[in-house]
Amino acid sequence: MEKDNIMKKDDCIFCKLANGDIPTTTLYEDEDFRAILDLGPATKGHTLILPKEHFRDLTELSPEISSKVLGVARHIGMALMKGLGAKGFNVIQNNGEAAGQTVMHYHVHVIPRYSAKEMPLWTPGTLSDETAAEVLSAVKIK
Amino acid sequence: MEKDNIMKKDDCIFCKLANGDIPTTTLYEDEDFRAILDLGPATKGHTLILPKEHFRDLTELSPEISSKVLGVARHIGMALMKGLGAKGFNVIQNNGEAAGQTVMHYHVHVIPRYSAKEMPLWTPGTLSDETAAEVLSAVKIK
Repeated sequence: MEKDNIMKKDDCIFCKLANGDIPTTTLYEDEDFRAILDLGPATKGHTLILPKEHFRDLTELSPEISSKVLGVARHIGMALMKGLGAKGFNVIQNNGEAAGQTVMHYHVHVIPRYSAKEMPLWTPGTLSDETAAEVLSAVKIK
Repeated sequence: MEKDNIMKKDDCIFCKLANGDIPTTTLYEDEDFRAILDLGPATKGHTLILPKEHFRDLTELSPEISSKVLGVARHIGMALMKGLGAKGFNVIQNNGEAAGQTVMHYHVHVIPRYSAKEMPLWTPGTLSDETAAEVLSAVKIK
């Protein structure tokens, strides 16, 4: 399932993993993606979805690949639940070092969850009317 | 931008928010989605993307909506960085109570990040060869 004419970066470890240039545990592969086991798993079955083409993060992702990612994540998540007895799963994608992205090749974490005791992922704050108004005024979308 | 003939659930708070039946701080709206500020934000600008149609989670999401979610998340994330000076953002979607899903209407968290000190979201473990083989054998995809 080699795909030609896609942009890869020579010094990118995830380009090599996604395209089979470095062996790894592959759970799923199609023309556009490879899904592999994370070497630093949050839980058993923690999987990474890697596009074979190089994109740094979501801001760079092509519309074609963007439209296909969640279909793959759905497949993976359902298979992790069925195969490993997980009770749910998180789909997490980090953009930028400040957001915890450690490899600068777009990737999606699918993390099976076995118990709500592993949660939550963050500490909820509160939203004041003042902050809501401030954000609404600062953030312009389209 | 009312959309007719979509499935909504009468007792679902996110159906009401997504479709404008309850007022809330709306950052973005199109035919299929509404993006609103989370009332329990992890950081300033924490946004939820809600499809107007009711789906419990990713396993139920329609292919049409699935293909559009990340394009919206990209828009939102880039606008949060530009408008609020965030240095990155997480895109997080939880499936099932065990994964921290608290409202059973599919939604995507877009969380702007201002500093890597807020990270990571989980504690990395290690992947043994035995576990990799066990998962590969248990999880059947397609």
